[in-house]
Amino acid sequence: MALHMAVEVVRDSRTSLTAQIQSFIKREISEGILHPGTRLPSSRRLAGDLDVSRSVVVEAYGQLVAEGYLEATQGAGTRVVTHLDAAPPVVPALLDEAPVPAVRWDLRTGGRNLPAFPRREWLACYQRVLQAAQPADHGYPPLAGEPGLRTELARYLGRVRGVRVTAGQVMVVAGFAQALGLLCTVLRQDGVDALGIEDPGHPGQRQFVHETGLRPVPVPVDEEGIDVDALAATGVRAVLVTPAHQFPTGVTLSPARREALVRWARDTGGRIVEDDYDGGLWYERGPRPLALQRLAPEHVVYAGTASKALAPGLRLGWVAAPPDLLARLLRTRARHDLGTDGLTQLAFAELLRGGLFDRHLRRLGAHCRERREALEEAVRRHLPGATVTGRAAGLHAYVTLPRHTDEAALVAGALRRSVVVRGGSAFRVRPRRDAPALVVGHAHLPRAGVADALRAIGAAYPGG
Amino acid sequence: MALHMAVEVVRDSRTSLTAQIQSFIKREISEGILHPGTRLPSSRRLAGDLDVSRSVVVEAYGQLVAEGYLEATQGAGTRVVTHLDAAPPVVPALLDEAPVPAVRWDLRTGGRNLPAFPRREWLACYQRVLQAAQPADHGYPPLAGEPGLRTELARYLGRVRGVRVTAGQVMVVAGFAQALGLLCTVLRQDGVDALGIEDPGHPGQRQFVHETGLRPVPVPVDEEGIDVDALAATGVRAVLVTPAHQFPTGVTLSPARREALVRWARDTGGRIVEDDYDGGLWYERGPRPLALQRLAPEHVVYAGTASKALAPGLRLGWVAAPPDLLARLLRTRARHDLGTDGLTQLAFAELLRGGLFDRHLRRLGAHCRERREALEEAVRRHLPGATVTGRAAGLHAYVTLPRHTDEAALVAGALRRSVVVRGGSAFRVRPRRDAPALVVGHAHLPRAGVADALRAIGAAYPGG
Repeated sequence: MALHMAVEVVRDSRTSLTAQIQSFIKREISEGILHPGTRLPSSRRLAGDLDVSRSVVVEAYGQLVAEGYLEATQGAGTRVVTHLDAAPPVVPALLDEAPVPAVRWDLRTGGRNLPAFPRREWLACYQRVLQAAQPADHGYPPLAGEPGLRTELARYLGRVRGVRVTAGQVMVVAGFAQALGLLCTVLRQDGVDALGIEDPGHPGQRQFVHETGLRPVPVPVDEEGIDVDALAATGVRAVLVTPAHQFPTGVTLSPARREALVRWARDTGGRIVEDDYDGGLWYERGPRPLALQRLAPEHVVYAGTASKALAPGLRLGWVAAPPDLLARLLRTRARHDLGTDGLTQLAFAELLRGGLFDRHLRRLGAHCRERREALEEAVRRHLPGATVTGRAAGLHAYVTLPRHTDEAALVAGALRRSVVVRGGSAFRVRPRRDAPALVVGHAHLPRAGVADALRAIGAAYPGG
Repeated sequence: MALHMAVEVVRDSRTSLTAQIQSFIKREISEGILHPGTRLPSSRRLAGDLDVSRSVVVEAYGQLVAEGYLEATQGAGTRVVTHLDAAPPVVPALLDEAPVPAVRWDLRTGGRNLPAFPRREWLACYQRVLQAAQPADHGYPPLAGEPGLRTELARYLGRVRGVRVTAGQVMVVAGFAQALGLLCTVLRQDGVDALGIEDPGHPGQRQFVHETGLRPVPVPVDEEGIDVDALAATGVRAVLVTPAHQFPTGVTLSPARREALVRWARDTGGRIVEDDYDGGLWYERGPRPLALQRLAPEHVVYAGTASKALAPGLRLGWVAAPPDLLARLLRTRARHDLGTDGLTQLAFAELLRGGLFDRHLRRLGAHCRERREALEEAVRRHLPGATVTGRAAGLHAYVTLPRHTDEAALVAGALRRSVVVRGGSAFRVRPRRDAPALVVGHAHLPRAGVADALRAIGAAYPGG
């Protein structure tokens, strides 16, 4: 343990070096600069660093132990005593999540319903990358992302999502949130002051758009996806959509609506932001919907993320955009940070390159399909009249309840039975037009947990 | 290889499934959506995914191989042929670095002069973290940083830099650039329109400050550090300083100037941003200067980074700020991204906790001290009259040249001899007041390289 410690001593002082070291450390501890539990360097180390005789430090440490500031433990070295720890560190809570109540099942979406992280595969890729890394790989990453990852992303997005893009048009970002933040800034530069958003949709995104200074304008969603006539009527010049698997309803934008949406963009010069948040995670039989972007790459900004398929903690996302817009996104980013963690980028490129990401998605898809099937069965059993609607994809499912159901009462009843679940109204801006519903994050549950949680909800169900 | 591929087929079409698959893939390749070299799923996989008989896919693939779109290689599966690769991906160059000329020695600072990354230690920490990770560790990281890292940083900063801070006042950021960007935004909200910067100083930071919308106001630096009277005369309300080891001159802010600077902040309500960019990397004998922040934690925002001591590629930095300011920095960040890569944060916490970071710094210090000594010797030998000034710390050294030296001619002459080095004027805003100089990044050089590079520079030296 070659620890460092800052100590101020004056060599030609009339105070002895021992007394100086002793009183310096005492003051640092008293003022909370040296924290309780902090391990200090060995007396040999500190003496060497200060260029004083070791006995000087041994004596100072000894005095501080005697006075109760330090404790010396066989094998664990010398530490600041911990019982001085009066005030625990205060973490500003304003932006941290509300504490999760201690419940049996938490079915909420968004950062909680996480599937298992493929730690073995990820570690193997990270290790390979680290071992092959050249000095430049540890330097400032290119602002648009590591070229190796951009190439792999372009290939992957073409193959799996049908995105029309070259590596030069892909930008790596710190998650979709950063992409959306940059886009909102660029839109504002173009005089755009409002962004169409889906209703129901993602409440966090709505809030995020609002905080970037754009006005979020809700546009209704029905069983074909976003209502393009309603969008056109709002007069907005940009819209954020989830065409493959609408969040939270799970519907896919119908072919007719896709065409209408692209026509809207062409006719009005509008911008479409395609949030393909769980595009790679599809477990329905038969072909999956391709990216909307391929129909009009000049009007659509395509954005994806590793948050659903892998883990939000990686803070890894990507954007495919026309070159002029990409250049402006980069310019905007250059005022915010200097790129995304290089090793994480390269490890993800490795995961893509070797096909391990595809394999992970296939396993995750099988896992989620099981949960979905368990959910369908449990809904039939415990929520008669309700149905699981929306496509079999992603980490959550949408359960449509019979018209007469009191959604709020059901959600409250579930909570009393130790199940946290959100009703459809938590995702709506405008008063309810569509049927009451539950939004069920299921990816993190054990199979039996799905049935157990639904049984508890069923007990709060009218007639349950 | 359980690869996915998006293919659109219509089951009740009059066109055969084979023909549909064939023409879909052909079109995707022709339009550049499927990229050259992309590996496709096995016929068995694709048939399974599309729910068609395997022979349908085998026949489609066979036709595409015959037509020259695909190639099938024993053991390597089926790929899109690579010779169609007409246009290489275009990476927008506007923000990427100018290409480094192929020279023998590149002595420039900033992302090039990187010491060896401690890959074994880092991997061990990363692996430990990954193996111990709970699902929540893969979720959205807290915006202010992982609590474990904030605690370790507060301890480390107290012990090694004498920073006066609790874990609750530390924020983890994506490198110092993000910290500076957030600070500039908050300053602008307070009506501040200009930021004092050191002259000479970091040209990239000057540019960055300018791009965030603040006016960078140069304040002269002399052998005692920033000139506080000159600072006061500018009338700015905030200043960015490098007190421990001024960049690039390497001087330490003198005790008298520290007090004057703090007095300026108290008298005017000014904000001091302390960029302690290489604060942990000190290899001069005797005590090192402590953080300025400890003198006036209510006026100083302390910022550090892993870019110098570890690697810029990690994009990891930290800020210690008073609670009200920290809350505003967090609120601002909440509009930009949703936090920093969690695993990287936790691995760094592990590196700090176990003392491995201290050990790394000690080794790196010994490495840099050798380079510094080699440089001092080579300067005596090849640049008579010049001296290595500034403290023995960090990844670079400042070589002051005799008054009469033509700095620009020396830099140009060195380049002709295949050595890239920057003169002091590259770091100055105002016309030269101080002596001509060279700024030498030495941390990445082999020992013998220091002598070799200086010999080449010496050959371009007047009388050399």
